[in-house]
Amino acid sequence: MEGRDSGRGRNAGTGEGTGGTVADVGEFGLIRDVTGRQQPPAGTVVGPGDDAAVVAAPDGRVVISTDVLVQGVHFRLDWSSPEQVGHKAAAVNLADIAAMGARPTSLVVGFGCPADTDVAVATGISDGLTAQAARVGAGIVGGDVVRSDQLVVSVTALGDLGGRAPVTRSGARPGHIVAVCGRLGWAAAGLAVLGRGFRSPVGVVNAQRAPEPPYTAGPAAADAGATAMIDVSDGLLADLGHLAEESDVGIDLATDSLEVDRKLVDVANALGADPMRWVLTGGEDHALVATFPSFVDLPQGWRQIGTVLMPDTGVTVDGKPYDGDIGWEHWR
Amino acid sequence: MEGRDSGRGRNAGTGEGTGGTVADVGEFGLIRDVTGRQQPPAGTVVGPGDDAAVVAAPDGRVVISTDVLVQGVHFRLDWSSPEQVGHKAAAVNLADIAAMGARPTSLVVGFGCPADTDVAVATGISDGLTAQAARVGAGIVGGDVVRSDQLVVSVTALGDLGGRAPVTRSGARPGHIVAVCGRLGWAAAGLAVLGRGFRSPVGVVNAQRAPEPPYTAGPAAADAGATAMIDVSDGLLADLGHLAEESDVGIDLATDSLEVDRKLVDVANALGADPMRWVLTGGEDHALVATFPSFVDLPQGWRQIGTVLMPDTGVTVDGKPYDGDIGWEHWR
Repeated sequence: MEGRDSGRGRNAGTGEGTGGTVADVGEFGLIRDVTGRQQPPAGTVVGPGDDAAVVAAPDGRVVISTDVLVQGVHFRLDWSSPEQVGHKAAAVNLADIAAMGARPTSLVVGFGCPADTDVAVATGISDGLTAQAARVGAGIVGGDVVRSDQLVVSVTALGDLGGRAPVTRSGARPGHIVAVCGRLGWAAAGLAVLGRGFRSPVGVVNAQRAPEPPYTAGPAAADAGATAMIDVSDGLLADLGHLAEESDVGIDLATDSLEVDRKLVDVANALGADPMRWVLTGGEDHALVATFPSFVDLPQGWRQIGTVLMPDTGVTVDGKPYDGDIGWEHWR
Repeated sequence: MEGRDSGRGRNAGTGEGTGGTVADVGEFGLIRDVTGRQQPPAGTVVGPGDDAAVVAAPDGRVVISTDVLVQGVHFRLDWSSPEQVGHKAAAVNLADIAAMGARPTSLVVGFGCPADTDVAVATGISDGLTAQAARVGAGIVGGDVVRSDQLVVSVTALGDLGGRAPVTRSGARPGHIVAVCGRLGWAAAGLAVLGRGFRSPVGVVNAQRAPEPPYTAGPAAADAGATAMIDVSDGLLADLGHLAEESDVGIDLATDSLEVDRKLVDVANALGADPMRWVLTGGEDHALVATFPSFVDLPQGWRQIGTVLMPDTGVTVDGKPYDGDIGWEHWR
């Protein structure tokens, strides 16, 4: 990792609480300021400060996922605190690991920013990453800091399957049930609120700023016999579309099983929006959606929302094609 | 990995050879165009197209390194082809894995670019990454593509130790010898040439555009008993400074053992530069430098360039402190 350093180099950081920009403290000072704030997680053989980190992979296979968050595209620092940006950058990756049925173990972080960026932005993002990763016993084991015009946070997460078979997108079969664990539509409601200049209700706004995916529900679903799984990052219909395509099946959702929280209804009423549209097409909550054989007792927190059909029908809602845009895609 | 997709989605890419921008083909079309061009490496349990990849980690530990390359900072598309940018993005990471004494197994790639970026730039970078990784039997197993103002390539590499102890920066002891494998100063000479508007001699220019680190020399050094190792990304003196600091030792280099290739001398004469300065302070060749007990027979390609001393002296050259800037740091 070019430029990684233990932080005891000749260009010392300003240290916690003294402020300043990344140009003031320099690359190695910034690395010291960031890495000095956290301990590597259990299972770390070699932590930050060497050419590469070494992490235990007890399963003999390692799960790996990467996501890049860009300022102005994935987050706005006038909408979110640096800690919330870090939280979100961790969450999107940890949810991907969970969606394979694995337990996240560690993160590496690539961080790019302009020279006039406050050190507090970098340390805040690092703190948010660390705190969210700690929720599942994971942590940061390495990284890279570089100069860039736009703030960029690139996170790669590793996970351990603990002997489980990975749950891919391709194992759904007609007759299976479709179930979800976690929130749907909350982050989309929060985005609608923020986009109109409001900062409350804080429940939906924070769902957008700092999602709370149900990480442990992934391995639990795998243990219960989930046949296919995906995390809802682009939107329920869009992501079930990916799953249906990979499994070569159709899926029908029953809207009467998609509970719409009272808070979403209130926000939708205030904004003149359709809360069911948020539930069906809103991304970024990182709920987990999976298919199971129909005889399975669903694990805690999972609820049935649909059924797997023959491939001809695609993804339908109450037996009909959905009318409208179904999810997010870059450059469209 | 948000937005990752098998590429068989509703937004099909334009396909190979038809040109266009990433906005023309869309996120999922771009992913199809990129992933359709390469096969995942041996040891891939789940490859591109799912929430996360799954890779064999036969050692039970996994080595992980990440580096972010930013257009205008780490590469210029008027100086390098997209394939060379991909080559370099792979090389900087694979060298970090090698410097731990490990064998690279797989890469994940985060790719950010503006909407008007040619698809050929993305596929070229992917081809360069794939070709360089293939040199060591590794390959791309997953990634993320996002919109950004500046072209950004964020690579994370995994490696396997094959039962070896990781070779860190901290194991050098007084009395050990310092040895190097690979080129020194070539990329710096190439940068000087390119910076003055020239495109030749091609040997040094291509060393800057597309470095060729001695990947297999890393595990070979570990097998031979290397006590500490680092890849020369910032410059020989700077990186030996990191190693000396982590090991709490001093290091003295003997310039008469640092061979300066005739090509470097010629370029230096033409530009009025000092070739030994390139050798001592030039980064980006990603040579490997390591310490060994003095009784060790150095593996093929390694040559002694110095000795490990007591910590008081820092890193010296022919017994004296080096006069000048010793290496690269961001935001300085």
